[in-house]
Amino acid sequence: MGEGFGVYKIGEDEEIIKYVTSANIACGFHAGDPTWMKNSVFLAENNNVSIGAHPGYPDLIGFGRRNMQIPLGQIVNDVTYQIGALTAFTSAKKLQHVKPHGAMYNQAVLDDEQAKSICQAILDSQSDAILLALSGSKWIDIAYSMGLSVAKEVFADRALNPDGTLVSRSLKGSVISDISEVIDRSLMIIKEGKVECVDGTLLPLEADSICVHSDTPGASNIAKALNEAFVSEGISVKPISEII
Amino acid sequence: MGEGFGVYKIGEDEEIIKYVTSANIACGFHAGDPTWMKNSVFLAENNNVSIGAHPGYPDLIGFGRRNMQIPLGQIVNDVTYQIGALTAFTSAKKLQHVKPHGAMYNQAVLDDEQAKSICQAILDSQSDAILLALSGSKWIDIAYSMGLSVAKEVFADRALNPDGTLVSRSLKGSVISDISEVIDRSLMIIKEGKVECVDGTLLPLEADSICVHSDTPGASNIAKALNEAFVSEGISVKPISEII
Amino acid sequence: MGEGFGVYKIGEDEEIIKYVTSANIACGFHAGDPTWMKNSVFLAENNNVSIGAHPGYPDLIGFGRRNMQIPLGQIVNDVTYQIGALTAFTSAKKLQHVKPHGAMYNQAVLDDEQAKSICQAILDSQSDAILLALSGSKWIDIAYSMGLSVAKEVFADRALNPDGTLVSRSLKGSVISDISEVIDRSLMIIKEGKVECVDGTLLPLEADSICVHSDTPGASNIAKALNEAFVSEGISVKPISEII
Amino acid sequence: MGEGFGVYKIGEDEEIIKYVTSANIACGFHAGDPTWMKNSVFLAENNNVSIGAHPGYPDLIGFGRRNMQIPLGQIVNDVTYQIGALTAFTSAKKLQHVKPHGAMYNQAVLDDEQAKSICQAILDSQSDAILLALSGSKWIDIAYSMGLSVAKEVFADRALNPDGTLVSRSLKGSVISDISEVIDRSLMIIKEGKVECVDGTLLPLEADSICVHSDTPGASNIAKALNEAFVSEGISVKPISEII
Repeated sequence: MGEGFGVYKIGEDEEIIKYVTSANIACGFHAGDPTWMKNSVFLAENNNVSIGAHPGYPDLIGFGRRNMQIPLGQIVNDVTYQIGALTAFTSAKKLQHVKPHGAMYNQAVLDDEQAKSICQAILDSQSDAILLALSGSKWIDIAYSMGLSVAKEVFADRALNPDGTLVSRSLKGSVISDISEVIDRSLMIIKEGKVECVDGTLLPLEADSICVHSDTPGASNIAKALNEAFVSEGISVKPISEII
Repeated sequence: MGEGFGVYKIGEDEEIIKYVTSANIACGFHAGDPTWMKNSVFLAENNNVSIGAHPGYPDLIGFGRRNMQIPLGQIVNDVTYQIGALTAFTSAKKLQHVKPHGAMYNQAVLDDEQAKSICQAILDSQSDAILLALSGSKWIDIAYSMGLSVAKEVFADRALNPDGTLVSRSLKGSVISDISEVIDRSLMIIKEGKVECVDGTLLPLEADSICVHSDTPGASNIAKALNEAFVSEGISVKPISEII
Repeated sequence: MGEGFGVYKIGEDEEIIKYVTSANIACGFHAGDPTWMKNSVFLAENNNVSIGAHPGYPDLIGFGRRNMQIPLGQIVNDVTYQIGALTAFTSAKKLQHVKPHGAMYNQAVLDDEQAKSICQAILDSQSDAILLALSGSKWIDIAYSMGLSVAKEVFADRALNPDGTLVSRSLKGSVISDISEVIDRSLMIIKEGKVECVDGTLLPLEADSICVHSDTPGASNIAKALNEAFVSEGISVKPISEII
Repeated sequence: MGEGFGVYKIGEDEEIIKYVTSANIACGFHAGDPTWMKNSVFLAENNNVSIGAHPGYPDLIGFGRRNMQIPLGQIVNDVTYQIGALTAFTSAKKLQHVKPHGAMYNQAVLDDEQAKSICQAILDSQSDAILLALSGSKWIDIAYSMGLSVAKEVFADRALNPDGTLVSRSLKGSVISDISEVIDRSLMIIKEGKVECVDGTLLPLEADSICVHSDTPGASNIAKALNEAFVSEGISVKPISEII
């Protein structure tokens, strides 16, 4: 959330906020600015939604979705900076969680050293915060081994490769915007612990958190429908901090 | 301090740090970046120098020295963001003080609403931090009335107008780089409570803190000579937090 | 036009382009980026719309609408840079006109030195380009005296102070979005050579060009209705270069 | 040259300019800003040094030396923008050459599509400009096949891998600052058409242009000594446009 910048607005934050329990708020590097952050924190706190930092690469023009080869020490510092900046806007002066954005997230799935650098930044700046990382990735193990709390994240609106990584946004079909498909996939993950990959294979998958991208077309409808589906299936939806 | 950016370096931080008790560290808006901040905090902590945020306007190209008409709410958010970002790099997760930079500082001296906005940001994000503000300015009174701790700051290396404001950097003679003049002025302020303005008049002036700009030519020599002069005059030099 | 940035979109350029003869394209300082510029130039050329540079202050976060005290030499250089960057995307490798944006434009109306600096940049980089400047302002005279071609510009969708300056966007009623009012005002300017100011007084006003802001709500409807009104009144609408 | 930014200065441009015939001027993406560009163009023209654009990735904080995965269309647009911006500052309104910087250059050596995109930008914006590309690379062939003029470039101050690519700056020994070594290598390239790689092997290498980095320690001494060595060996030093 809060992925606008200056006069630019993106996403339907005011709607989506009603149906989620945790919000990832952009911190000014890939999107967001101090005023968007202030307003997004206000929106989340007013809706009793738990707040996490959504740090990204310093690439506003590419919305943090272009990979960058950033030295590891700079990754630690970039993430630390963004965590601190967002924290200052919260009433509690602490965050529930940290979830990197876009290429920074995807690279951490592929590169152990990047994964470690992100974990190190959390340890250095706010060691109680929960890391949200891709379920099934080695990043999860790295975070545990470094002593972090971790939530396994799955994506309601993204297609998966058979190895559990996200299908690249540059490929067709990578983003799922059909609501009933999003719901079916999500329920299968939660109730059966598996998901259908882009090639049709079934992959075992645990989920502590289901992500809805606020810039997916119809995002608020997806969030609303998912929330209703969970309620009608008797699945309770809670902030991450209550289940980790 | 920490007013480099990426590969760019400015100032003689490693030298100056030996002779000061409090450091203002740039926070990425007018200068500085996450890695400069990390290294500057490390340098200060290793030298037992107390750390303060040095927030500025979002104007890297102008080094925060060009005035900008920023809406007040955005000033609050810009300062909050920068305070939070720097705090995350400190071991203590708190700052001793906050001192705005350049045009943001000068405008707060002239504009009560801007002064209030900066104070509000400190209250919102780190209410125990001490504000460093220009001695003799109305900003000092505003900060007291809002409940902040305040240190009255004077400038060892800048000429003063008769009303106590700094002579604009665009005018000749605004920056004093002659060391003996800097020392004489500083001792007069501390021992006699007054200073000679640019027109020769004497102005009463209290000082809790004396600023040395790290980018003034010969800054580390100025800092060293001042420190030695204070010692030889029996004036003890302490972090602001021990005297406020 | 072209006032998006990266993934951010603003304005209804594809619609508005059908009803205008000249387009001001943002150049990456207050808005726009190389890819937006490329696409906007393509859109304009495909619709036989003449192209002008829309340079602004280096203030993406404020959309170039916050005043900045930029030294005059830097103003010249900032405008030169933006003119050159846009020119490179055009087929003709030249621009029809230059029209500064937002605070840079408003400041040129108020400050002769800023007006001169902008004119100097046009002379230095593309001396045949026509300056669009506020009708009735001293800027017009300055530009003539420096040897520039000038088009007198009026605003279809902005309220005017009695001195001919635009009512500040921070004030209510500054932007006129009622279409029939925009049309009536525009026709009065063109046919009677005068306009009603915000205080009810009538101001004589010449117009070579009428501006429609692409980010005014309903901008494309305004542009379309204006175009139709002109046609039905027998007023021909041509690129600036054909009338200056 | 012109790789400063705002108050930040880097390189010894005023010295180096005396000993070179062609200057690559930064264009504001990896370094440089409009005022640095204006002053650098002025310096080059005053010293009869031919001017080329030095476009880089949009990564000021990383000085354009961090690789970024930028979509090809955006590469074309980023380079076009920078070429246009620099051109506007020149008296001739045209450039002698274009030489990409840092990671953008290195990636073009490795990636044919990136090489093509850079060539396309030159064709689109200033088709007479000469491309400077790494001698021995496929990029040279690509540029020829697209109809560009090309100068084969070698580096006086950088170690080479056996395949002719530059040894990464992250490795020790990648930058050669010993002047006599730089001279010996350069003379061997020019007179014998070969160079010694980092593993001791000899690589055949043609050279139209020898690059001296203005930020290599002692860069102006290197440039001066090279120039003198060439003169004493009877090798004439001319602008690229006179030999291509």
